[in-house]
Amino acid sequence: MRKPTARVQVVAIDATGSRTRPDRVVTEEPMEIRIHGPNEAPQSVAVTMRTPGHDFELAVGFCASEGLVASRESLDGVEYCVGGEGEQQYNIVTIARRHPVGEEIRQRNFLATASCGVCGTAALDDLVVRCPPVAPGPVFPWSAVRELPSALAERQALFDTTGGLHAAASFGVDGSIDVVREDVGRHNALDKLIGHAFLADRALSPSPGVFLSGRVGFELVQKAAVAGIRCIVAIGAPTSLAIDTARALGVTIVGFLRDSRANIYTGAERIDLTA
Amino acid sequence: MRKPTARVQVVAIDATGSRTRPDRVVTEEPMEIRIHGPNEAPQSVAVTMRTPGHDFELAVGFCASEGLVASRESLDGVEYCVGGEGEQQYNIVTIARRHPVGEEIRQRNFLATASCGVCGTAALDDLVVRCPPVAPGPVFPWSAVRELPSALAERQALFDTTGGLHAAASFGVDGSIDVVREDVGRHNALDKLIGHAFLADRALSPSPGVFLSGRVGFELVQKAAVAGIRCIVAIGAPTSLAIDTARALGVTIVGFLRDSRANIYTGAERIDLTA
Repeated sequence: MRKPTARVQVVAIDATGSRTRPDRVVTEEPMEIRIHGPNEAPQSVAVTMRTPGHDFELAVGFCASEGLVASRESLDGVEYCVGGEGEQQYNIVTIARRHPVGEEIRQRNFLATASCGVCGTAALDDLVVRCPPVAPGPVFPWSAVRELPSALAERQALFDTTGGLHAAASFGVDGSIDVVREDVGRHNALDKLIGHAFLADRALSPSPGVFLSGRVGFELVQKAAVAGIRCIVAIGAPTSLAIDTARALGVTIVGFLRDSRANIYTGAERIDLTA
Repeated sequence: MRKPTARVQVVAIDATGSRTRPDRVVTEEPMEIRIHGPNEAPQSVAVTMRTPGHDFELAVGFCASEGLVASRESLDGVEYCVGGEGEQQYNIVTIARRHPVGEEIRQRNFLATASCGVCGTAALDDLVVRCPPVAPGPVFPWSAVRELPSALAERQALFDTTGGLHAAASFGVDGSIDVVREDVGRHNALDKLIGHAFLADRALSPSPGVFLSGRVGFELVQKAAVAGIRCIVAIGAPTSLAIDTARALGVTIVGFLRDSRANIYTGAERIDLTA
């Protein structure tokens, strides 16, 4: 399997001039996710550009947040494509499910693209039907939330060496970081986190809170809500549709968290500003 | 059509306390792109989460960089879905092409997901076959390249009000910025730029250089190379596959451009450090 970072030679320029020196960049490789039930041929679910590492978590987290595997019990196995040659056998992950997949993927794709009702409201309505609102609580002390960027920086394994990765970190009610996952794709980082909890048999939700190093779009809120995550804290800003979705599903969004400043966009009752 | 930014109420927290105040966030809405030839029913090409605005450029740029429309002459028209209701008619854009689409889209999807050869090398090989290397030259003076972030900041219409947008800007040999496009999706911003040049009948390439506000992944290099863009300058870092692709196609990548510092990853001959 390729490593999550790669060595390259760069021409580094600064005020004193330029010189050729080695540097590290984040590895980006396509990974195909396939799924099948008993006695079925695998079907392709998605091809995602990802950073190698925690590939099984990524595949499982993706399928869990898409509703293709609903519980640990429904999962029969996860493996690399053993038929491939050399490196490329690590770029296909196959999930075995205990009940048939059949036409499920085809029907989902059809629903996603064939209706004329593609708009924010329609997408939001679909989601609300598919995903019940998350449970109320818990309450996080602001004094802990505001320390998440520095806590992540201490834990982040790759970021400092490449500067090219997104991170997702699960955190508890006291603000302590549980698991960190990194990827060139921000959705992948969250999928890995969700897949980690799933494979560890802790249901879908990695923890009540998730901290994201980037911006918050609709799809990240969707994934979080399906997994039961109740509070999203991010360094970046949320989009309009992310806010609408979070409000509909009872998810808290804290954004623009920098230097002990932040904005609460939804679910402010979960942040205790006095603690 | 919805506006590119939306007003929201936030709880703003800083060292002095918290208060509720209005804020602006970037609008995110799904847009479906469809294409058809003469006497054909439209087929869905993609659904992308995008910021409303320059939607026709986005649709045309996406199809151009995917090879579905090869020249201005092959384009017969671009329009919103007139059958939709209210806002949602602005979330479907249909492209009319002068020659039949037929099975082209279905075959492309099949090729992208059905082979066991999904890996960086295979994807790169596919691309090299589909896209010839870009032409040599031109040479950009470093003194102009290093000013791109401040030149973009002067031109960027939305960024300062939301902090949630990616920008792509075309620039000439003297470093002067030509067109700026912004979107919640970094690929969309580049597609809009390419679509703008396409619709303005300046072939595919908006200009020899493109400046990106974020990171540089494989797909951005692919889009740039197909459009004939020869130099990518970015505030963020490139990935391993972006570098491999740029090297194979003769594209220059300058990354991590901040405070007059930068790294040249590929095609250093296009940057004149003495000028």
